[in-house]
Amino acid sequence: MERHFDEELKELHKELLKMAALAQEAIFKSVEALKTRDSVIATQVIDDDVRLDDLELAIDERCIDLIARHQPMAGDLRFLAMAMKINAELERIADLAVDIAQRVNELVDKPLLKPLIDIPALSSIAQGMVGDAIDAFIGKDPALAKKVISSDPEADRLRNLIQKELINDYMGKDAQAAPRAVPLLLIARHLERICDHATNIAEDVVYLVEAKVVKHHHEHL
Amino acid sequence: MERHFDEELKELHKELLKMAALAQEAIFKSVEALKTRDSVIATQVIDDDVRLDDLELAIDERCIDLIARHQPMAGDLRFLAMAMKINAELERIADLAVDIAQRVNELVDKPLLKPLIDIPALSSIAQGMVGDAIDAFIGKDPALAKKVISSDPEADRLRNLIQKELINDYMGKDAQAAPRAVPLLLIARHLERICDHATNIAEDVVYLVEAKVVKHHHEHL
Repeated sequence: MERHFDEELKELHKELLKMAALAQEAIFKSVEALKTRDSVIATQVIDDDVRLDDLELAIDERCIDLIARHQPMAGDLRFLAMAMKINAELERIADLAVDIAQRVNELVDKPLLKPLIDIPALSSIAQGMVGDAIDAFIGKDPALAKKVISSDPEADRLRNLIQKELINDYMGKDAQAAPRAVPLLLIARHLERICDHATNIAEDVVYLVEAKVVKHHHEHL
Repeated sequence: MERHFDEELKELHKELLKMAALAQEAIFKSVEALKTRDSVIATQVIDDDVRLDDLELAIDERCIDLIARHQPMAGDLRFLAMAMKINAELERIADLAVDIAQRVNELVDKPLLKPLIDIPALSSIAQGMVGDAIDAFIGKDPALAKKVISSDPEADRLRNLIQKELINDYMGKDAQAAPRAVPLLLIARHLERICDHATNIAEDVVYLVEAKVVKHHHEHL
């Protein structure tokens, strides 16, 4: 018996929420691994990524299958096309958590360069933005999406702060600091890029709901 | 009068090829700007990105419109779904060229740290992989796609080489080198990430044509 379109759409929502939750968990764990200098957790993040890769493929297949079987009208079609895009963004986010975990494994046998304050703060912002972005999509909530978009400048600011401090106060003063400072600098960049992907999702939501292109035009929000 | 599906598909091919050509040009120009320390060219790459953003939106709209009006069978539907994914990859590639151009603008008023050899080599690989990846998609050519995938380890090797040299031979020996070495290190990473996006496109092509998942499983090629 053919299942109802709305019922199948709910399954898709569940899978996307699961994908987002796994991505958030990967970000959290990769930064925990950094804080506790724990290569076991870092390696777990790297190994667990295969679950997200499989889920990404399953979600894409579900979207294509839904379009093929139900031939949905424009609104639902647009939602499904965007679900595939957002699915890809979530997989990228998880890949960036893997990048962070790889940097952690480069650092784990070296003494800590400095106490970590701004990187955990940036990680919290990133996790919050990812969660809000996917909730905005599922709930078709442009207000929540705009909240995500408005968080991105703070993530940029923190990334720049971390980068400047590492270059000017550490590498610029002690040549021996470079092998420990560069991975931290890259982790800050990975986290900021996660925020960019969450922003991409949020921009897609505004486009979907309000048919308004905010992509690359934040100033007009 | 309703136009024929195949005719509209050819228009889509043209737009994707144009998108890829613009992305390749952006990569080329950003690295030219680095070689010649030319902030005018770098800023041009940054300003021109809006053309790629607009084209990305137009391609997505064309794909959704094609699906809505023609309700294509599974094979064509899958091709169109993938066209949207590949479209997003090309836009990301262009964004990375913008990232490179931004690094160039950070470097332009500082003396050159070292002669550039490996970065232009990595740029050539990146441009070639992008061109081959899109040709493989349009031509549904899995052999060409596999050639792209097999180029990625060389890009990784060059990126690692550049990174090690900058950390060990420059920043690690002279603390004053950091503000000039970090942007170069990031440029190498941006170029390598372009190669990753080309590889994503190529993996999608193999999946599309051979219904074989090579994503995240390069070793089985």
